[in-house]
Amino acid sequence: MTRTVLESQTKAVTIGFDEPFCVIGERINPTGRKKLAAELEAGDFSTVERDAVAQVAAGATVLDVNAGVVFNTNPDPNETEPPLMRRMIELVQGLVDVPLCIDSSVPGALEAGLAAANGRPLVNSVTGEEERLERVLPLVKKYNVPVVAISNDDTGISEDPDVRFAVARKIVERAADFGIPAHDIVVDPLVMPIGAMATAGLQVFTLVRRLREELGVNTTCGASNISFGLPNRHGINNAFLPMAYASGMTSAIMNPLALPVNQTKIAEKKAEVLAKGVILPGDMDDETFVQLFGMGSTKYRPGKEMEAIRAANLLLNNDPHGSDWIAFNTASATGAEAASGRGRRGGRRRRG
Amino acid sequence: MTRTVLESQTKAVTIGFDEPFCVIGERINPTGRKKLAAELEAGDFSTVERDAVAQVAAGATVLDVNAGVVFNTNPDPNETEPPLMRRMIELVQGLVDVPLCIDSSVPGALEAGLAAANGRPLVNSVTGEEERLERVLPLVKKYNVPVVAISNDDTGISEDPDVRFAVARKIVERAADFGIPAHDIVVDPLVMPIGAMATAGLQVFTLVRRLREELGVNTTCGASNISFGLPNRHGINNAFLPMAYASGMTSAIMNPLALPVNQTKIAEKKAEVLAKGVILPGDMDDETFVQLFGMGSTKYRPGKEMEAIRAANLLLNNDPHGSDWIAFNTASATGAEAASGRGRRGGRRRRG
Repeated sequence: MTRTVLESQTKAVTIGFDEPFCVIGERINPTGRKKLAAELEAGDFSTVERDAVAQVAAGATVLDVNAGVVFNTNPDPNETEPPLMRRMIELVQGLVDVPLCIDSSVPGALEAGLAAANGRPLVNSVTGEEERLERVLPLVKKYNVPVVAISNDDTGISEDPDVRFAVARKIVERAADFGIPAHDIVVDPLVMPIGAMATAGLQVFTLVRRLREELGVNTTCGASNISFGLPNRHGINNAFLPMAYASGMTSAIMNPLALPVNQTKIAEKKAEVLAKGVILPGDMDDETFVQLFGMGSTKYRPGKEMEAIRAANLLLNNDPHGSDWIAFNTASATGAEAASGRGRRGGRRRRG
Repeated sequence: MTRTVLESQTKAVTIGFDEPFCVIGERINPTGRKKLAAELEAGDFSTVERDAVAQVAAGATVLDVNAGVVFNTNPDPNETEPPLMRRMIELVQGLVDVPLCIDSSVPGALEAGLAAANGRPLVNSVTGEEERLERVLPLVKKYNVPVVAISNDDTGISEDPDVRFAVARKIVERAADFGIPAHDIVVDPLVMPIGAMATAGLQVFTLVRRLREELGVNTTCGASNISFGLPNRHGINNAFLPMAYASGMTSAIMNPLALPVNQTKIAEKKAEVLAKGVILPGDMDDETFVQLFGMGSTKYRPGKEMEAIRAANLLLNNDPHGSDWIAFNTASATGAEAASGRGRRGGRRRRG
């Protein structure tokens, strides 16, 4: 049975076919987060700290750390990214005791991260590109760590799943040449947006099964890509994750958090409420308002995807005695409702 | 490719591996619904009418009709159920133009339903029990209709999935002896509550795949059984359905509706609202109140399971161009939010 073991200073997390789904929190990543990028360049790590704690509280068991900021003062990431990666890793592992996933396309940043990280982090990533294979695999071997293998190569990302499978096989074989075992390769079969490619979901489900059955490797993906550009992305992600998991996927790099309700939405709702003739007490704070009107919370909390994954853990017999499911739902609002007997009846037993 | 064709007066619904998931609405069933049972005995069909229309509006493409009332005035269902079944079927198909699923353990009621139903209804059900096989299969042949085959037999429901598979195979073989083709058998592999059997989910996923690959049959199940006795049943059902579908399940007998918010909940919420010092206008109607406070609706509307199934249709490439997903989410509240650009961001593209 394929087991990929990650470690923090004191904890081990195993990615495997008979393990709970491994949720790798994706939030500590300035790519596409301009505000965070600016903060990091200015030496402000408050968002990193908050995201580290919040993601672990929401159920992430591994945290991805990406330091990919292009500094305004120095545009060469080979110079700026390694020290920033080291700093971020030291900071994160000082706050939370979970294994890290060192995420960079800059080999120097990967090495800086590997030197700084406690335990046995996951390297993110190698691809089938020759230069990447030659740069990253020696590092993976040197530090004896597992690595995410993304199934594109020098020809780019193929739309043909057979080609992506062949690239994954090539990476596993090349890793073996370096003495890296298949159980330390976590293949990302690449998730395309289903809005752009109608077969994107089917491709992932089929590839994951083949990767598991034919190569015996664990798998991961950037899960939210699947819903890019479509309405109600959470609705798509919430179905995609259990389906991928049922097909054999063993981890995902994803956002475990629901976005807190922001001031704009609060202001819009207050206007709607007032227009209906409702009078609010002057001293009502935002969190009370937001909860009272069923809007969620102004605080970070687990996203709906975490509920889907916990349910899937239960359904695949990776939640012994349902204890995680019951604890999760007793703690959350939905669960409190169910526990108090006021929960909506979920359906009837069909027979008997 | 296995295709099970059901028909109403003017519409055909195909259950198949490359078809949208077939949602068979389960609500028109007095089993465990005492109020409905009493209404039916009294000749009041208003709930049946409402459930027929609401389920189709929510996305059910087939409606199960069960007339299993034990009358207080006559405890013999062999006498009372056939005329009630006939009456209910005539009523339902006068209201909605979808194929029906004639659901009874009383052979006389199945025959009455078959005589009354337009088109090509689904018979629910035959089992591997000798007496059922001998009573039901001739009816199925006579009317040239498809049938749900439940994988239990005279020894009961086995906890061993291999035994349940063998029972399904036996039914398919016996049906063949009657001249009924495998594509007209829709096997229910039996869904056990996961709270009672930790492997219940895995069993279904494995069985569905085997039934599809080895027997070439379509499958269905009483989906909500899986979550019986556990908190947040919808959370479990919402993951189970896409996982079963990804494993090859092609239909389910399920509740497509969310329960309307009832007067008790409205009263509780009003008390909570008043305790927070909020003043409501005296003339606010219940539906406005419920919507304003994010409680859902006092009306029937699609349950979360329907969102999960529509997302799964999209992900398995059974929703060409995503048109059903987009229409569903543009019509619903979530979709309106997304369409107006105010939707919560579902995640970032990981790369590129």
